[in-house]
Amino acid sequence: MHGEFELIARWLAPDATQRRPDAGVALGTGDDACLLEPSVGQQLVVSVDTSVEGRHFPADAPAWVIGHRALAVSLSDLAAMGARPRWCLMSLAIPSVDDDWVAEFARGFHALCTATDVSLTGGDVTAGERAVSVTVMGEVATQQALRRDGAQPGDIVAVTGALGGGAGGLALWQAGERDLDHPLLARYLLPQPRLAAGQLLVGHASAAIDISDGLLADLGHVLDASGVGATLDMERLPLAPGLAAALGETVALEAAVAGGDDYELLVTLAPKHLDEACNALASIGLQLTPIGHIHAGQGIQGVSSAARRGWQHFSGGTP
Amino acid sequence: MHGEFELIARWLAPDATQRRPDAGVALGTGDDACLLEPSVGQQLVVSVDTSVEGRHFPADAPAWVIGHRALAVSLSDLAAMGARPRWCLMSLAIPSVDDDWVAEFARGFHALCTATDVSLTGGDVTAGERAVSVTVMGEVATQQALRRDGAQPGDIVAVTGALGGGAGGLALWQAGERDLDHPLLARYLLPQPRLAAGQLLVGHASAAIDISDGLLADLGHVLDASGVGATLDMERLPLAPGLAAALGETVALEAAVAGGDDYELLVTLAPKHLDEACNALASIGLQLTPIGHIHAGQGIQGVSSAARRGWQHFSGGTP
Repeated sequence: MHGEFELIARWLAPDATQRRPDAGVALGTGDDACLLEPSVGQQLVVSVDTSVEGRHFPADAPAWVIGHRALAVSLSDLAAMGARPRWCLMSLAIPSVDDDWVAEFARGFHALCTATDVSLTGGDVTAGERAVSVTVMGEVATQQALRRDGAQPGDIVAVTGALGGGAGGLALWQAGERDLDHPLLARYLLPQPRLAAGQLLVGHASAAIDISDGLLADLGHVLDASGVGATLDMERLPLAPGLAAALGETVALEAAVAGGDDYELLVTLAPKHLDEACNALASIGLQLTPIGHIHAGQGIQGVSSAARRGWQHFSGGTP
Repeated sequence: MHGEFELIARWLAPDATQRRPDAGVALGTGDDACLLEPSVGQQLVVSVDTSVEGRHFPADAPAWVIGHRALAVSLSDLAAMGARPRWCLMSLAIPSVDDDWVAEFARGFHALCTATDVSLTGGDVTAGERAVSVTVMGEVATQQALRRDGAQPGDIVAVTGALGGGAGGLALWQAGERDLDHPLLARYLLPQPRLAAGQLLVGHASAAIDISDGLLADLGHVLDASGVGATLDMERLPLAPGLAAALGETVALEAAVAGGDDYELLVTLAPKHLDEACNALASIGLQLTPIGHIHAGQGIQGVSSAARRGWQHFSGGTP
């Protein structure tokens, strides 16, 4: 039936001869399904994320950026579980056949596959509103995955990297900025999933989540799943460099607590693990910043009124 | 961000307490990713299919039918590999929140999950043109999967069940028929993936594919992958019961060779395996019908001119 789209799907497929022998792919794209070889003693970690044009990425973003970003946001879920990424499948919907666009899209997608050692092993292409759905599969040693439900009273709340860059970059894009070398724009459009950090935090962190919905929302998910509360120290939030200069201090803080799209990791960990975890992340050039602590109860305390306004501004809800 | 849609995603999630202890699910929906437990000695078989409203299913189809069908067409890929289905993830895009529609959709989806022993372990819901993308995961003993590239000269070409019902049902739907108890309509809207048949054919079939694009197109995929040709015996094609009566003999034949959407299995097998394979499928009440044979060369011979016209009618291409 949809011959042209099927051709595109095949054309998107990577050259199997380029695949590493230890990729665990017995059969890649081109059959009814792929055949993968999971590792013994590991759990399979699977997530899917759909990115829709105009909602999750700007309609006028470069195609290679869309390819990178769609995969990156899915991989971020594996990072939050402490998993090693291995394979992915990609469903692409496009309104019409545009070889140049697809080639650019594929370039961004495959580049991140290569950088993160992920094999694209399946997928399909359909006619439709432009959207990308990426299923990612990884592995983690049995019972070692970082989950949302492990936070304990007394744990420290910490975040990797810096916050607010995602929302700040979106604001800049909306204001007309198009230089992808701009650090904030890069944070928004070209997120780097914290895969190495997630794997290094296994054995140290008691819970983890990636910050896609915003710090308060995602911390809330951890608290709900763990049945605990938290108090934040707003003074310690690591703001993305240049964020306050670009947007002003108030909006910068709002972006950091509620803006989302940062794809940093939020973790909880026992105080005794903090130094080791910081040192482990320092070895890959990443900062881990304590920003609060877990206690009995529920909800988030210590949130400044400016931050609460930010929550309402960005999410329309109340923390 | 998209709070209402996130709520729907959680609401779509099955009750973990209903899950069988041997489901191999260490962690289901609700975290950043699910944690699954693949079986030792098995390969993981993964496929994704996206169904877009108005292209892959009628916009006015009942929601539960759409839920069933979206999962069924993905599971059909696992059937074609001879895999036992185990888990799935589902991405749903809907233009707006409609609780009744989602409840009905979920009912159809979950009913097929239960019937096929598949656990829904993840997914997301986004705002967008109505579409469903289903990733299915199954298992098959290492090196036992049915692939497209194993057909050998001398093999018999055979199909499960009957052909043409998918296209016939679509024609009836387009003509206004809405009785889902009509056998042809059911074949189109409520396909039953041939999962048991696929698993029974492991060890007998040399190659397999599911008939989604139409007999000639899908046989063509097997021939291309295997580097062989085939000759068909048009007289032996098992037409769906009632098809000729409903559409006339000419259109019925066209539908059977080129209509697609039948989700039967097309297999090749050495003559010595035919009786065993037929008996195995008879044990589950399914017929396996020889319709031709494989030989050296390429392309498909023995296709009647009526069938070639059918190909052009349904696909716009030439066989």
